[in-house]
Amino acid sequence: MPRINFHQQLAALKDKLLAMAALSQQALEFSVEAYLARDMDLCNHVLEIEQAINAAETMVDEMAYELLAKEQPMAIDLRFILSVIKINGDLERIGDQAANIAERAQSMKDVPQISLPIDIEDMGAKVGVMIRRALQALLEADAKMAETVLTMDDEVDAMNKAVQAELVEVMQQHPAVSEQALNAILISRNLERAADHATNIAEDVIFWLRGSDVRHKFSLAEAD
Amino acid sequence: MPRINFHQQLAALKDKLLAMAALSQQALEFSVEAYLARDMDLCNHVLEIEQAINAAETMVDEMAYELLAKEQPMAIDLRFILSVIKINGDLERIGDQAANIAERAQSMKDVPQISLPIDIEDMGAKVGVMIRRALQALLEADAKMAETVLTMDDEVDAMNKAVQAELVEVMQQHPAVSEQALNAILISRNLERAADHATNIAEDVIFWLRGSDVRHKFSLAEAD
Repeated sequence: MPRINFHQQLAALKDKLLAMAALSQQALEFSVEAYLARDMDLCNHVLEIEQAINAAETMVDEMAYELLAKEQPMAIDLRFILSVIKINGDLERIGDQAANIAERAQSMKDVPQISLPIDIEDMGAKVGVMIRRALQALLEADAKMAETVLTMDDEVDAMNKAVQAELVEVMQQHPAVSEQALNAILISRNLERAADHATNIAEDVIFWLRGSDVRHKFSLAEAD
Repeated sequence: MPRINFHQQLAALKDKLLAMAALSQQALEFSVEAYLARDMDLCNHVLEIEQAINAAETMVDEMAYELLAKEQPMAIDLRFILSVIKINGDLERIGDQAANIAERAQSMKDVPQISLPIDIEDMGAKVGVMIRRALQALLEADAKMAETVLTMDDEVDAMNKAVQAELVEVMQQHPAVSEQALNAILISRNLERAADHATNIAEDVIFWLRGSDVRHKFSLAEAD
């Protein structure tokens, strides 16, 4: 098989991954919108997108497996394919987080909506930027851009901790709204998880480009 | 390089992964014990184990990468190495969940311990069994054993939902213990996540042995 065909296949793999990435990003952004507006149609749409993401994940894995099995990729190409396999898993898990948020919004359908002293919209927007930047870093092979994602992750972690502290207060003082407060805490946690996956993607882009493993070097506190 | 050396390297990779798996399982079981007993020394020990898990993850990834780069593994060997890379990521994330639980137990150090109408010990034990079985399936190349893990995951999901419903009630009726109830909810969720990772490992064992992708076939409701 001529080598040019191999590079076409690599490009096709990247395109497929980026198309899937667009779905994951969309699912996450829609899920926050659906929660804030209690939009049940949009919740359903998020769950549909998640199914499409799951199907795309299986296809990307198969394409990557075929390339490894039939070609003998070396060095940067091998690292690229391994990165794709990992990024694929993280994109699928961003889809899971979006589905969690949509399902939580559905469960709140008949619970009175109240104003809480936190800003889920802002947090969702920040996580959206992280996902976009991680993908742009992949698209443009830009390790420096990927690094900016790693620092944003610390900000989202801090936001999540602040939401939790704030809403424990609310629950203690206004037990009648415990359910709404708990849901907001869990959604904040879903967003923090999605940010972790964006961070993983950024780390994989750096591994692809530089061949160095940056995991466990930037932040020892990635747990929680 | 003679082929026998390749199989020795594969065996070494499997041994390294299993040693890491033992650490992940231990970290999770200790973290539940530490939370239930508010044992701060054990919390610290869990956080130390998590650091060891992170170091092991990097090493397993490097061994797998070397094997792919230097040999041209085919079919079942290629699937095994790809499975190792994925299982490696899931084991590291089980370590993250254990660290989350330990940190949460630490944050509860000075908060009065109360009795809650849920059974975290039972849930932790079940997740421990799932991890053990997934690893035994890997060790013994037993796809049938791996399948039993997938059904247990549904039980843990149901337990997590029950914990949440029960504790929202508690928070509404006894706002003074909201913090303890919230922590128990979040720990239940960490356990449910760890069960998801055990499920992923079981799916990867099945992929290795049968070459079929079982993800998204068993349970469409893996999110939440």
